[in-house]
Amino acid sequence: MKNASYLIGLDLGGTAIKYGVCDVDGVVKNEFISESNSDEPPDIILNKIKESIAEALYYARNEKWEISAIGVGTPGCVDIESGYLRGSTPNFKFWKDVAIKRPLESQFSIPVFADNDANAMAYGEFLFGAGKDCKNAICITLGTGIGGGIIINQQLFRGSKYAGAELGHMSVCHNGKKCRCGGIGCWEQYASAPAMVENYRTLNADAGSITPREIFKQYQNNDSVATQVINEEIKMIGAGLASLVNIFNPQRIIIGGGLSEAGQWFIDQIAAEVEKRAMQESFKSVEIVPAKLGNKAGWLGAAALAWKQYLSD
Amino acid sequence: MKNASYLIGLDLGGTAIKYGVCDVDGVVKNEFISESNSDEPPDIILNKIKESIAEALYYARNEKWEISAIGVGTPGCVDIESGYLRGSTPNFKFWKDVAIKRPLESQFSIPVFADNDANAMAYGEFLFGAGKDCKNAICITLGTGIGGGIIINQQLFRGSKYAGAELGHMSVCHNGKKCRCGGIGCWEQYASAPAMVENYRTLNADAGSITPREIFKQYQNNDSVATQVINEEIKMIGAGLASLVNIFNPQRIIIGGGLSEAGQWFIDQIAAEVEKRAMQESFKSVEIVPAKLGNKAGWLGAAALAWKQYLSD
Repeated sequence: MKNASYLIGLDLGGTAIKYGVCDVDGVVKNEFISESNSDEPPDIILNKIKESIAEALYYARNEKWEISAIGVGTPGCVDIESGYLRGSTPNFKFWKDVAIKRPLESQFSIPVFADNDANAMAYGEFLFGAGKDCKNAICITLGTGIGGGIIINQQLFRGSKYAGAELGHMSVCHNGKKCRCGGIGCWEQYASAPAMVENYRTLNADAGSITPREIFKQYQNNDSVATQVINEEIKMIGAGLASLVNIFNPQRIIIGGGLSEAGQWFIDQIAAEVEKRAMQESFKSVEIVPAKLGNKAGWLGAAALAWKQYLSD
Repeated sequence: MKNASYLIGLDLGGTAIKYGVCDVDGVVKNEFISESNSDEPPDIILNKIKESIAEALYYARNEKWEISAIGVGTPGCVDIESGYLRGSTPNFKFWKDVAIKRPLESQFSIPVFADNDANAMAYGEFLFGAGKDCKNAICITLGTGIGGGIIINQQLFRGSKYAGAELGHMSVCHNGKKCRCGGIGCWEQYASAPAMVENYRTLNADAGSITPREIFKQYQNNDSVATQVINEEIKMIGAGLASLVNIFNPQRIIIGGGLSEAGQWFIDQIAAEVEKRAMQESFKSVEIVPAKLGNKAGWLGAAALAWKQYLSD
């Protein structure tokens, strides 16, 4: 009897690398976390990735699990054919023009698949989480930026050169704030976690280094500044999602990332705002739901994409 | 030898019905135009459609051409399975909740396929015009509103309940103008032909009933108001397209509709504006081109969609 297949998935983030071992049905066998050193040059980051994979592999081999493929999710625009990171990403200063697939395959002699982190997260939620049984879904992550993933006909849609699905860089204000991407009025300038904190600080100069979590807590205590800031946050998330509803008329919109953990009331209020703004026909069949896999979605999705690629090769 | 197949296509517009006979390769055999009576109740409009088809059919039969299928493009959200117009459209007061396919099939005993007019136009350009050989393309029509069509993997993408691709109702201004669709700051409120005329009138109270064509003419004569208005128009078209570039990273963006006929300089300036705003990786592989089929795109596309449906049945 052939051994069952296991996978390693890895999700490179601004502060941490999350990674783990799962089976081909997305059942988590073990998971790990380490620092990502995102401010360092590419070879340092790549070494951190290698160390992380080696750790997971060591664990798997101890358990006598055969690892069939390794999936890596990374910020930036990835050419998935070659596993090469082409585009830069504002949170990683030097992390661009990096071969990811080739050096990892030569080190571990296991097939490696690399993709954009938001794509991996969307695929994870689609296969194993809040997007199960969907044909068409939109996934957004509300965090330091706004990441996006698009599922069309049960496939990730990445654009013709893998540089699409940049949903956080849809402009919601044609003459608004300059974005780090070079654009004007990008959605993430208004609805990301830092935007929320900035709004709070504008209204309360003594706020210091307040976190989104603290703002949500103050909101629950009926603090007036926090209420104003959260209401604005809901309005701005809703404004962007309404456009995505009119463009994609998806079955489901899945909201992940740190802010999505505020609770079901937050998702419900976002949905109410979308309903106010979106076209009736486009909205009426859409469900808006929180992500289910939390911070596992990225590495599980990367693992699943690697498995899909393994099967098609 | 079996007779060759011919098709009838029909494009229902706010003022006119454009229709014609073509072969299955999109070669125009004859074309017609009649009034659409868009302010009238549905049965009057449907009668106009029937008369138009009867005229084209009469012509085809005289030529001994066998009509295999009839395609109808109409404003609004069409359930393409049943050929039923579900959603309303602001330009057609009463034109909603109308069975299109069933009454036409029962009258003519020829298979009928109905779809949204912007979808039909996009499909026409994709098969026979400026989108040839594209895998992924975005098509917009700049006219009374902004219509949109999305080609993904050589197929029309309509959303999960046929209510997507409403690209003119992507918001470019989260706290901007109220739109007829119920939304706020919709792109077509800023970049359609009426928006351009309104901008002109705001700057020149004596403008009367000036047309977009006249504004373009004054622009060519270096009129300062027209220059300001056209520059704003280019900026607003570019602002919306930049978002679509970041979302779809398409191979090609095809610009049709009345305004697109201003000339290549207009398309070039739009492209320059998009380049300023879109993400570098997402933009660099995109071509921005004018539509090629003019006002034939809609009815030719509807005919081609009917033929596609005929072949798959």
